[in-house]
Amino acid sequence: MSHPARAIVSREALGEDFRGWQMEDVMVRSPKARELLVQMVACGICQTDIAAGSAPTGVHGSFYPRILGHEGSGYVLQVGEDVTIAQPGDPVLCSYNFCDDCQLCKDGCPSHCVNFFTANSGTRNGADVFKSAHSGTEDTFISGAFFGQSAFASTTIVSEHSVVNVKGLITGRDELQLLAPLGCAIQTGTGTVTSTIEAKSDDIICIQGLGAVGLAAVMGAKIQGCRRIIGIDRVRSRFQIAKRLGVTDIVDTANLDGKTLQQAVNEVSDGIGPSITVDTTGVGSLIDAGIAYTRPKGKYVQVGSPEAGHRINFDSFSWLFSGKQLLSVVEGQVRAREYIPQLIEWYRKGLLPIDQLCKTFAAIDFESALREMRSGATVKPILCW
Amino acid sequence: MSHPARAIVSREALGEDFRGWQMEDVMVRSPKARELLVQMVACGICQTDIAAGSAPTGVHGSFYPRILGHEGSGYVLQVGEDVTIAQPGDPVLCSYNFCDDCQLCKDGCPSHCVNFFTANSGTRNGADVFKSAHSGTEDTFISGAFFGQSAFASTTIVSEHSVVNVKGLITGRDELQLLAPLGCAIQTGTGTVTSTIEAKSDDIICIQGLGAVGLAAVMGAKIQGCRRIIGIDRVRSRFQIAKRLGVTDIVDTANLDGKTLQQAVNEVSDGIGPSITVDTTGVGSLIDAGIAYTRPKGKYVQVGSPEAGHRINFDSFSWLFSGKQLLSVVEGQVRAREYIPQLIEWYRKGLLPIDQLCKTFAAIDFESALREMRSGATVKPILCW
Repeated sequence: MSHPARAIVSREALGEDFRGWQMEDVMVRSPKARELLVQMVACGICQTDIAAGSAPTGVHGSFYPRILGHEGSGYVLQVGEDVTIAQPGDPVLCSYNFCDDCQLCKDGCPSHCVNFFTANSGTRNGADVFKSAHSGTEDTFISGAFFGQSAFASTTIVSEHSVVNVKGLITGRDELQLLAPLGCAIQTGTGTVTSTIEAKSDDIICIQGLGAVGLAAVMGAKIQGCRRIIGIDRVRSRFQIAKRLGVTDIVDTANLDGKTLQQAVNEVSDGIGPSITVDTTGVGSLIDAGIAYTRPKGKYVQVGSPEAGHRINFDSFSWLFSGKQLLSVVEGQVRAREYIPQLIEWYRKGLLPIDQLCKTFAAIDFESALREMRSGATVKPILCW
Repeated sequence: MSHPARAIVSREALGEDFRGWQMEDVMVRSPKARELLVQMVACGICQTDIAAGSAPTGVHGSFYPRILGHEGSGYVLQVGEDVTIAQPGDPVLCSYNFCDDCQLCKDGCPSHCVNFFTANSGTRNGADVFKSAHSGTEDTFISGAFFGQSAFASTTIVSEHSVVNVKGLITGRDELQLLAPLGCAIQTGTGTVTSTIEAKSDDIICIQGLGAVGLAAVMGAKIQGCRRIIGIDRVRSRFQIAKRLGVTDIVDTANLDGKTLQQAVNEVSDGIGPSITVDTTGVGSLIDAGIAYTRPKGKYVQVGSPEAGHRINFDSFSWLFSGKQLLSVVEGQVRAREYIPQLIEWYRKGLLPIDQLCKTFAAIDFESALREMRSGATVKPILCW
């Protein structure tokens, strides 16, 4: 049996004019073993959706048509065989998918699952999650299961591994909307700082990029009580939000007053650089700069997806004596089912004021959401069904 | 007042024929504030001595004449003002020097002191620790204070920071001889594994290079109970020692049986590589290989001094998803005064059988020691006064 739904279908690469993605009627099949049928309430838009849905076919593994979206929240409609995580009616947040079979998954680190790409890039070769419901095109394959969820659909199939059951943890539908981004952007930024790096009160942390992941890292640093939180960006509209969330020092790369970036950062970090640098931008020149200005024995942490072709490249001998540590972290290196309840607790205590960076849009207005995200007017748009 | 001593003076770069270094009579001045005059019992020879004393003047900061040696042990003869660490008659081991004033020293990490080179490369510009006692050359400056000690001398000046007082910890002169290398090679290898990395029983550790530092790392891995200890070298004579010390799997780079190094390592590490790789060689091709074959989310640790000009260089995007950590560690990142007592305790319990890699030589026979070190016949020669 198949289920009717509405979905934002990426028919081709998203253009400058936002063409290529369109709202369509689709049909969703019933859940198989270890899958759930979920009625989506909301889904955040992440830069990864835009990256995956903007590249021409064949570039960086992109293909069309597909349904993206990987910060979904909703209520379970139906469960397939062997599903134990939730029952129909339960509220769920959705996170990344993993194989649960490789050595990394067995070792308790599914965010670095060796099959991460396969598990998260969506169905291929006609595997049937979605079909078009448009007349005359009913058999057309549309790729689903992006991050095990494809949450840009009003009803979708979610892999059991991607599901976090939040029954008893949230107050209702409104919270389910607002908390949708916990499963990716928020856990990535906050988890990196509070869980993987375990920043301390004597740390000076520098966060490159004040988008949703960067601001989540700021909130994490504030929770950890870091003595100084440096925020780096070039979008002025983000600076006020960043300060409200805990940034103590802004470095505006669009206005360095004749200083080098390293000089500007050193001025607010004991003269020898931050003890932790977290890059959420993936911009090559910022990666290079961040590694360089992190203080001796400090930690440089790659979180943002580096631009294609960029290489980490530095002198080995100088590095040895610097004692710098280079870490790379996907999804905050957290297990969503364990970490999201902690995030909700912090939210409840006012320590994770994510409402300050989120704005809800009706799903049909997704173009407005994309436009505000591109201009910087909105940090984290949430599409609501 | 000055004190007569014998010393191995590096007059020029050590040649293939071992010319350039020679035993000489020298005069040592009395200790100033925060210095100790120490009658040396013994000093290990480390590759760093050979590197520092083999480069032509001006290359890699080399200069002559100088007295090298930085794994010294001996008895205090006299102390300068403000010295509190030891009294005349106390047995001491000597370790690296540090400024005790920079942010890294203040943060408790003197091995990554930002003035490490200045503090350890020896006196310059005529600062008077040693003078030649040869007739007609009595005013000739000879650089001292290498690693705060210049322990290739029968009597020398030692910086207070370099001193570890072992009064009450050792049984006598024989132990003082054998334990001389604790302050550099042994603490570097063992400290990296037991203290900085804190290897666990479920780790598979791969140690590149089975010289003194590498074998010390092996002993550390054995103490930590690592489930598999892979040793990589091309000098066959070291393999038996390595196995006795705890290596479970040898990869002989001189005899890979048609396999690539990565294939050979993967075969003995769950098929996905070691969870920890420690490079003690500094060889560029091994650094590259080690970073590549460390398993996802594993730790690659640089301990050996990389060859000049080598650059760490890898694709940033792949690295992010690998979750690999890159660490660099000088002197095991230990504070010698805290860590050496632990090493002595392990030695006493039979957990650190360093006698298996050490061989003593009369100081006058230093050329034999250098020859056996070069051929691989002796891993760690100790020169005795």
